[in-house]
Amino acid sequence: MFESAELGQKIDKETYEKEEPELRESLLNAQFDLTEARKFPVIILVGGVDGAGKGETVNLLNEWMDPRNIRVHAMGEPTQYAQERPPMWRFWQALPPRGKIGIFFGSWYTDPIVNRVVGKCKTEELDQRIDEINRFEKMLTDEGALIIKFWFHLSKKAQEKRLKALEKDPKTRWRVTDTDWERFKIYDRFVKWSGYTLRETSTDISPWIVVEGADARYRSLTVGKIILGALRKRLDYKKPEAAKATIAPLQSRIDKTNILKSLDMSLALTKAAYKTELEKYQGRLNLLMRRPNFKKNFALIVAYEGADAGGKGGNIRRVTAALDARYYNIIPVAAPTDEEKVQPYLWRFWRHVPGKGRVTIFDRTWYGRVLVERVEGFCSEVDWMRAYSEINDFEEQLVRNNILIVKFWLAISKDEQLRRFKEREKIGFKRFKITEEDWRNREKWDAYEQAICDMVERTSTDIAPWTIVEGNSKYYARIKVLKTLCDTIEAAL
Amino acid sequence: MFESAELGQKIDKETYEKEEPELRESLLNAQFDLTEARKFPVIILVGGVDGAGKGETVNLLNEWMDPRNIRVHAMGEPTQYAQERPPMWRFWQALPPRGKIGIFFGSWYTDPIVNRVVGKCKTEELDQRIDEINRFEKMLTDEGALIIKFWFHLSKKAQEKRLKALEKDPKTRWRVTDTDWERFKIYDRFVKWSGYTLRETSTDISPWIVVEGADARYRSLTVGKIILGALRKRLDYKKPEAAKATIAPLQSRIDKTNILKSLDMSLALTKAAYKTELEKYQGRLNLLMRRPNFKKNFALIVAYEGADAGGKGGNIRRVTAALDARYYNIIPVAAPTDEEKVQPYLWRFWRHVPGKGRVTIFDRTWYGRVLVERVEGFCSEVDWMRAYSEINDFEEQLVRNNILIVKFWLAISKDEQLRRFKEREKIGFKRFKITEEDWRNREKWDAYEQAICDMVERTSTDIAPWTIVEGNSKYYARIKVLKTLCDTIEAAL
Repeated sequence: MFESAELGQKIDKETYEKEEPELRESLLNAQFDLTEARKFPVIILVGGVDGAGKGETVNLLNEWMDPRNIRVHAMGEPTQYAQERPPMWRFWQALPPRGKIGIFFGSWYTDPIVNRVVGKCKTEELDQRIDEINRFEKMLTDEGALIIKFWFHLSKKAQEKRLKALEKDPKTRWRVTDTDWERFKIYDRFVKWSGYTLRETSTDISPWIVVEGADARYRSLTVGKIILGALRKRLDYKKPEAAKATIAPLQSRIDKTNILKSLDMSLALTKAAYKTELEKYQGRLNLLMRRPNFKKNFALIVAYEGADAGGKGGNIRRVTAALDARYYNIIPVAAPTDEEKVQPYLWRFWRHVPGKGRVTIFDRTWYGRVLVERVEGFCSEVDWMRAYSEINDFEEQLVRNNILIVKFWLAISKDEQLRRFKEREKIGFKRFKITEEDWRNREKWDAYEQAICDMVERTSTDIAPWTIVEGNSKYYARIKVLKTLCDTIEAAL
Repeated sequence: MFESAELGQKIDKETYEKEEPELRESLLNAQFDLTEARKFPVIILVGGVDGAGKGETVNLLNEWMDPRNIRVHAMGEPTQYAQERPPMWRFWQALPPRGKIGIFFGSWYTDPIVNRVVGKCKTEELDQRIDEINRFEKMLTDEGALIIKFWFHLSKKAQEKRLKALEKDPKTRWRVTDTDWERFKIYDRFVKWSGYTLRETSTDISPWIVVEGADARYRSLTVGKIILGALRKRLDYKKPEAAKATIAPLQSRIDKTNILKSLDMSLALTKAAYKTELEKYQGRLNLLMRRPNFKKNFALIVAYEGADAGGKGGNIRRVTAALDARYYNIIPVAAPTDEEKVQPYLWRFWRHVPGKGRVTIFDRTWYGRVLVERVEGFCSEVDWMRAYSEINDFEEQLVRNNILIVKFWLAISKDEQLRRFKEREKIGFKRFKITEEDWRNREKWDAYEQAICDMVERTSTDIAPWTIVEGNSKYYARIKVLKTLCDTIEAAL
């Protein structure tokens, strides 16, 4: 992996001084085009061995380009807040918006590699992280991001020479600490595992670029030219009009069953039975959430989806009534804000991932992508098709970090919806106003039904299964939701 | 302060059951109107003694109203991230946007009162915090917020009775810990200092409401009715057309001096002198920022304002060239985003307050309020008039927490601006495009000059003075900025 970076490549002063000004100007122009177009974000990763010029390069890039549209993230120890969330959480928070450049000095690669080097994890675990990273970067590029990954390398000899030279000079002696020599001792292991990781994550869409770090001029020009080339290529790329990704259509179930049509919508509860059950399950839920094991080690996400007039609002209130208001948070999902629009689709949900002992209830969710956005044509077919696996990745990360996910689809029959619409119109109270849009959505009942079935089939995983709630009886639906929550949490604790 | 809350006020079950449903419905309606209008945020503070029903009340409000538009903030120990910033920082972050309700369970009152009770601070310090709080709440209400402050009280006798009753019952015994009895021991001190604080912060615009906590029915109905009353009053309030706040006009300086007109715009540097000085001050600045004392205890905000074509961009680059890119962040201030628009004016600047050892450079700042917004009439006279003291408060909080603020006005003469505009037009390179707006702004030169002079006079404080930079010579301006930064940091360390 690193052979090309041990050739002793150098650039002389004259060449550098000839090439540098032009490179700077071109870079600045490219960056200006990027900022003006605001079409995609640029993510630059900077990794490698100590002393190979990582910091210097980052500083140089800021000097060459307009630093106002660059943000450097030095990712050190995660904060307590970040530690309570999946490892990728803090990188999601730091993603640059479209039109900007984000430089990650230390990135999602740092912990996996270092943990393997110091023996904190096994190769299987590293492989799992690598897998996760590959899917993460695929998602980013699918969402439009340009990812450029630099690895700065120094041969073992060059490293040793560098440390000794620094030590020799009284002015720079302070720069060499015991830690540096300790790290030098594990140089071979570090090179081995970073090489392994780089090979496994050097994909077509985001290959690693290994840069020989010994010569500052060579290093700087190389990095600058690569960034310029990648930026220009991407900026000048015109999507061919005719080319349309061909996508294999979703397969219908062989047995032609339709999960929604097979529901028993007559399930109901009497008011008396409801009252007793409500008391019972709210009490149980309340006690579960107070268990020290939950408070210390777990978190809960409740995801609500359902037909219009399906009863989500009232259902949510019966759940929150059992919870302590200090520990839950409800996110009503509406149109994305400006700040959310310039980020990958899942960004606005990652924002609200709960910390230990806490609950986030989503009133509509990330599944909007494969429901309303699909049916209404708000996003392209390729985009919603890839959303299934992106969502599964997202949920897998949450569950692996002890965040329980319970997903409900509140189903009502077409007749029941009509009844509720009419009832709401009759009441005429503005809180329940029925809009034209509601009636329009209703006309697309079959298309929605197809989308729901596809969604359930593709995202009902072992770790985060869907619960379809027969919702014609609001009483029945509320109890089923509460019971499901209790059972899931109890099983996990 | 608490006499009214020791009267043994009770409400019988019958009355409660009669009044409760109507109250709930009215509250829900009011909340719906609030959400729909999105005109102002509602901030509800919940404080008081233990066991007086704080948690129960918060839960009840969530049950009575639509919890999707309420967010409860249980403010416990601040995170490390928050601890590196002024105490008010985390409350700013948690402010509800317009149309939503934010309930603060534990608030900006908690630490000041508790610190005084346990003797961690003196009365003078408490007084200072009280002063800060009063100005903070005034700013919030001036920005449109409705603040409702509840204090839940229990007499000493009632408190003792409650704890003993809990202890007696085997089912509730676990709820009483040693901490409870320890807190009971300082009951008197707690009541003394909270009474003191409440008296000093019960203003016309946001008075405290002390609620007797012993009887749950009384407490719940009281709180519900007060919130309803406040919401309705505010929602139904129609601003009288004719009424316009009469504001005392800004006084011109008696001596009629104009700080901009008295600048020596001939100040300049030769290229050779510039190069030497640049090297010198960049080196000095770099070393200063690396000092352990700076890294551990300080942070730096550099605020750039200046005329169009005043040379901000190039100036900023000469500063950042001296810094390590991992530790600074540049915020180019443009139009506020959706999420910023529904918050008080200063919110979008509070977001970017740097942590220890870090630098935030603002390319245009919170002074936009008293410059462009004033001159262009984007905000009303009352709003920009009050901004002076709000800004001083903001900066005072930063400085008091070891965040150094250095503010630059890059001044150029009217002739020099014309020269630069024409030059830019000639180059014709898009990065420097001159817009109609630039020419329009130029026509308002005198109005801007007046605004700048007023700004400098009113916000050049001892702790955060303005530095006016004679900018006709870019070389001179860059060195003056670098030197000022070095001197300020050196003096502080």
